[in-house]
Amino acid sequence: MFTFALFAFAQAAAAQAAGRVAPDPRAPSEIVAAASAGDWVAIAPRDLLVMDLPPLNGKARRVIIQLIPAPFSQGWVGNIRKLAAAHWWDGTAVTRVQDNYVAQWGDPGGDTPKAKPLPVGLVKVPESEYTVDGNAHWNEIARLSHVGMAGMAHAGTGPQVGASDAYAVDSFNFNGWPTATNEVRLWPVHCYGMVGVGRNLSPDTGSGAELYTVIGHAPRHLDRNIALVGRVISGIENLSSLPRGTAALGVYATAAEHTPITSIRLGNEVADLPRFQYLSTESATFARYADARANRKDDFFIVPAGGADICNIPVPVRVAK
Amino acid sequence: MFTFALFAFAQAAAAQAAGRVAPDPRAPSEIVAAASAGDWVAIAPRDLLVMDLPPLNGKARRVIIQLIPAPFSQGWVGNIRKLAAAHWWDGTAVTRVQDNYVAQWGDPGGDTPKAKPLPVGLVKVPESEYTVDGNAHWNEIARLSHVGMAGMAHAGTGPQVGASDAYAVDSFNFNGWPTATNEVRLWPVHCYGMVGVGRNLSPDTGSGAELYTVIGHAPRHLDRNIALVGRVISGIENLSSLPRGTAALGVYATAAEHTPITSIRLGNEVADLPRFQYLSTESATFARYADARANRKDDFFIVPAGGADICNIPVPVRVAK
Repeated sequence: MFTFALFAFAQAAAAQAAGRVAPDPRAPSEIVAAASAGDWVAIAPRDLLVMDLPPLNGKARRVIIQLIPAPFSQGWVGNIRKLAAAHWWDGTAVTRVQDNYVAQWGDPGGDTPKAKPLPVGLVKVPESEYTVDGNAHWNEIARLSHVGMAGMAHAGTGPQVGASDAYAVDSFNFNGWPTATNEVRLWPVHCYGMVGVGRNLSPDTGSGAELYTVIGHAPRHLDRNIALVGRVISGIENLSSLPRGTAALGVYATAAEHTPITSIRLGNEVADLPRFQYLSTESATFARYADARANRKDDFFIVPAGGADICNIPVPVRVAK
Repeated sequence: MFTFALFAFAQAAAAQAAGRVAPDPRAPSEIVAAASAGDWVAIAPRDLLVMDLPPLNGKARRVIIQLIPAPFSQGWVGNIRKLAAAHWWDGTAVTRVQDNYVAQWGDPGGDTPKAKPLPVGLVKVPESEYTVDGNAHWNEIARLSHVGMAGMAHAGTGPQVGASDAYAVDSFNFNGWPTATNEVRLWPVHCYGMVGVGRNLSPDTGSGAELYTVIGHAPRHLDRNIALVGRVISGIENLSSLPRGTAALGVYATAAEHTPITSIRLGNEVADLPRFQYLSTESATFARYADARANRKDDFFIVPAGGADICNIPVPVRVAK
């Protein structure tokens, strides 16, 4: 066991004491709008999945997912790249929408004899890859001036504690993604819009052909129990506003209720895709943004929270200017 | 200042050590299904708001809201009772649906000269009533065997800390509702489905005529900044699956996009309403349920979270058998 989280807390506390992140009266959105060009990181088109649903009331419905980078979940992400390259999802469907939980899509044939054959070359990924060795990332994480910050100042007059995540010893945005740690392992977490791999009972971990996105309060109990492979960065409303399924677990009771998937493509196969960027979680701007999310000082607020959970500090994404 | 939260932690720890809440291998839903009749608390029809939207594709759309009881927000709740008794909301509309945030309804005339006149007798409630004196409830809370429990056992191998709420010193379900405290004040919190009072800038606190419900990750930064007056106990999908507004803050760009409200009535004015009940947060069954939410041991899970945030321990509600 090592103690990078505690080190990071101490470092963040020292940074705060030294005034490195001075209180900022601006709203989080204003801080993000004022970020310099260098604070934004380009997302390569090959790291996007573009899902097109049939138009509704004459309006196109497109959902864009950013695939998670190394060190996380690359076995499943490799499978997903193969499935997309094979155009495997074309003609599949959104088969489940459970309120305050997930929207899920894949082959309506599921595990039945009508199942659509999977492309060759998909790998079986072990459960051990739900998490990664935190030790390998200690130095990168220790440099994040926002780590431990949101949770440092508590709302109350009681004891100040470093850890304020009910599911982990610490959580923070790292390398552009929401993550948590137990000081030994490091893992991505189930925030709104995160995309995961449907599976059956353990030790099955799913191939990546069956995917879901979170459309409710973060179901963090799924962390370390399911592979997270990406997040929706555009168009999640096309999934989150679908009618809820009425069978168990929000599965649609009839196939007629499914929303068909016209196509899912890797971004580099799609013409005229906007160029997306995310706000570097390693930037000073991000640290100011995270602090402002935790301590709202704009006109509407009378009591700043004094903290924010990891899923209430979403990594800003924009179309490049 | 007093220390009921710390006392409660110690008490919960002692209870755990004494084995009062033994580990339970059942899924949370199984624990709730096995609750005895005496664990359920009836919700009086007069404490319900029944909102009817026009049928969609031939299907009725009804949303049922439980009003929050004393000691919370009773000034606004009194106004809401008057507005409902006056049938004031009939012909108003859902005017805003912002993804991962709120669905909001009220008078489309808003603050314009076209505003619908409010009933006489509504009171102006001060901001001080966003919270209540925690001291008055110390004894009741100290008796809750689940208080501090979900957060006691952390997922990690690091230090065990009592407080694991990023927004408060402690949080727990109390008197049937999700609440938080700074050891001085006590307040209800913004979980999925909670209903709050729209307002303009402080010191305005809103009358209760403009209401919203949370349809995304808990926006806990709104706690203590807005009055919470209830929660949706049935039919939230009729609000959460509405198309998202495309103007700023999810407001609908045109009135044509509004969903009209046919009527809102107090439950005692509605014929044939089911008899709703909630699981007593003071029951041993609730403590077992909360523990199971924090430590999933059913077949799907390979790593129990070791904790759960307050909004992932929703108070079970059912129709009486």
